[in-house]
Amino acid sequence: MSKGIGIVETQYYTFAAPPGRFLLDSGEKLVPITVAYETYGDLNEDRSNAILVLHALSGDAHAAGLHKGQNKPGWWDDMIGPGRAFDTDKYFVVCSNVLGGCKGTTGPSSINPSTGRPFGTDFPLVTIPDMVRLQGQLLDHLGIDRLLSVAGGSMGGQQVLEWLVSYPYRVQSAIVIATAARHSPQQIAFNEVGRQAIMADPDWQNGRYYGGESPAKGLSVARMVGHITYMSDISMAEKFGRRTGGNGKAHPFSNGFEVEDYLHYRGLSFVDRFDANSYLYITRAIDEYDATRGGNLADAFKGLKAKILVLSFKSDWLYPSYQSLEIVRACKTAGVDVTYCEINSTYGHDAFLLEVDEETTLVSHFLIKVFEGAR
Amino acid sequence: MSKGIGIVETQYYTFAAPPGRFLLDSGEKLVPITVAYETYGDLNEDRSNAILVLHALSGDAHAAGLHKGQNKPGWWDDMIGPGRAFDTDKYFVVCSNVLGGCKGTTGPSSINPSTGRPFGTDFPLVTIPDMVRLQGQLLDHLGIDRLLSVAGGSMGGQQVLEWLVSYPYRVQSAIVIATAARHSPQQIAFNEVGRQAIMADPDWQNGRYYGGESPAKGLSVARMVGHITYMSDISMAEKFGRRTGGNGKAHPFSNGFEVEDYLHYRGLSFVDRFDANSYLYITRAIDEYDATRGGNLADAFKGLKAKILVLSFKSDWLYPSYQSLEIVRACKTAGVDVTYCEINSTYGHDAFLLEVDEETTLVSHFLIKVFEGAR
Repeated sequence: MSKGIGIVETQYYTFAAPPGRFLLDSGEKLVPITVAYETYGDLNEDRSNAILVLHALSGDAHAAGLHKGQNKPGWWDDMIGPGRAFDTDKYFVVCSNVLGGCKGTTGPSSINPSTGRPFGTDFPLVTIPDMVRLQGQLLDHLGIDRLLSVAGGSMGGQQVLEWLVSYPYRVQSAIVIATAARHSPQQIAFNEVGRQAIMADPDWQNGRYYGGESPAKGLSVARMVGHITYMSDISMAEKFGRRTGGNGKAHPFSNGFEVEDYLHYRGLSFVDRFDANSYLYITRAIDEYDATRGGNLADAFKGLKAKILVLSFKSDWLYPSYQSLEIVRACKTAGVDVTYCEINSTYGHDAFLLEVDEETTLVSHFLIKVFEGAR
Repeated sequence: MSKGIGIVETQYYTFAAPPGRFLLDSGEKLVPITVAYETYGDLNEDRSNAILVLHALSGDAHAAGLHKGQNKPGWWDDMIGPGRAFDTDKYFVVCSNVLGGCKGTTGPSSINPSTGRPFGTDFPLVTIPDMVRLQGQLLDHLGIDRLLSVAGGSMGGQQVLEWLVSYPYRVQSAIVIATAARHSPQQIAFNEVGRQAIMADPDWQNGRYYGGESPAKGLSVARMVGHITYMSDISMAEKFGRRTGGNGKAHPFSNGFEVEDYLHYRGLSFVDRFDANSYLYITRAIDEYDATRGGNLADAFKGLKAKILVLSFKSDWLYPSYQSLEIVRACKTAGVDVTYCEINSTYGHDAFLLEVDEETTLVSHFLIKVFEGAR
């Protein structure tokens, strides 16, 4: 693989403008709002090479490159950089942390200016459209009217759909990966179990845990459930089988299976890097989201000029291919220019982060066509 | 459907015989042991019509009929009774609660005779072979040397396999439904999340909660995870869709979806009827179980004379059909007389309790052939 992007830095912009500037879907106002974002590559003179990349549930603005003194690259580093799918020699890539998150953008762990303490559950409910609206204001601030492309997987894919539905005139193309126009009851159910696990933890304290113990056990259980759904039956069998582990038995009712150790590790390490209230706010927004607005996606896409690439993964049972095909069918029905590919992966939902080679080929060809078609 | 079995009563037998009589796989002795069981129909003169029915994780000895003053029939009532699949006009059906359970058979909530208080986590670890050994002793007590058939789904199916592997001479036929010779890492992972949810509940208190608050929130989360895996994506879509519910929003981060209400209800109602420590002990045993003993199932089946019926369900993703096919393949390789059918159901794993018509046809024909062939 080509040399990566090198050292990057998260930037912050605070919208402190007139009260009322940022009205949420809930009807509440939220001012000021800080957005954490990163950019890679350079915006060209006619501002026609900007691509917005959108992160999934537990992601953040750090999509590529390295933070100074750290050795863990951004979450989509394999896809973003010189010569990579999102080629920073050609494109200007922007990624921001979502509203309600805990990685620099205003969320429930931010300070409530009216009390001087963290919002906790006084933070207003947020929606996927709220998140996208804030991304639009960030682009305004960066002087970008129109995006060459908008791309994301999972929750990021929902945001891509929201860009298409609400701001079609700002989007020249879109890359929709491993997502759904709206969550099925099974998808909602898995998130609800995670929420219940967090709220069952007495350290959650109705969301007012800042400064004390955080609901680490509950958040850890939520993350364990998540991880099962991100992998596939096959990928777990390949990775762990029934091997028993190096670490011995974590508790008396463990059989010491490696898969148990893996879940514990994943659960515990998540607690160090994610806020439980953000998990509640964001999963609620994901479950609520409906790109069709209770109606028909084809109607929502009518008149759309953007070119669309839809990708799904064969073993992804959390966001199964039939949900991507519903998006494709809506595009076709609405006369939208759409390309679809189901990638033959065993990685389950995680594939959108792991199937780099095939995604690189598909995304880079798609972007080149869009970019050159626009000239 | 024919008239059911009517009023039944759970019976109890306590093995109080010489110390050392019941040695567990762990090497520990457990005396006395009480077994809760029910019987339906009459044992014939030559004691050749007995069928042992084995329950799943949350089941109990009450497989059919009604308990006096109650209106909820046993868990497999649709399948057991006069003229039903397990026809009590012909067969003598026995079902007992498993060792480690909480429905009358000795388990962690039973009184430890050496302390006078409930065992809690002082209860020894139990295994599927331990459970089956105790069933064997119950049959000894009932004067049954040889079973016409042994039948069960899910964990009950694991016990059927254990009967075949360890007591082949006592089994004339076997009905193996929606199960696996050993759990995959994905199956282990779902159980481990349930265990973690229970142990994360401070009311669990290392299993010494009897007489105080029980870890209801943790057990409820464990059950919610379970319920998602017992249904299918399709059955959830058919049952709930994205309808929002009658009960309103159960908590601030609920969207009020019916599927959320359903999970809450299922979680809470489980807490009233099941013991959290039993959940830990039994799921550990299920995950540990390996009918192949780390080897090859065909070798374990060599020389087996029993006729086998294996059933799986198309939409069952918790115990997918490929696991049943592995059992079938082992039978074929070992030269065992096996019949397999994948039932085309949308109910997921729950199908083994719900697809009564098709199961009735398959099971009743199978049993008649075995019963008449034996005369």
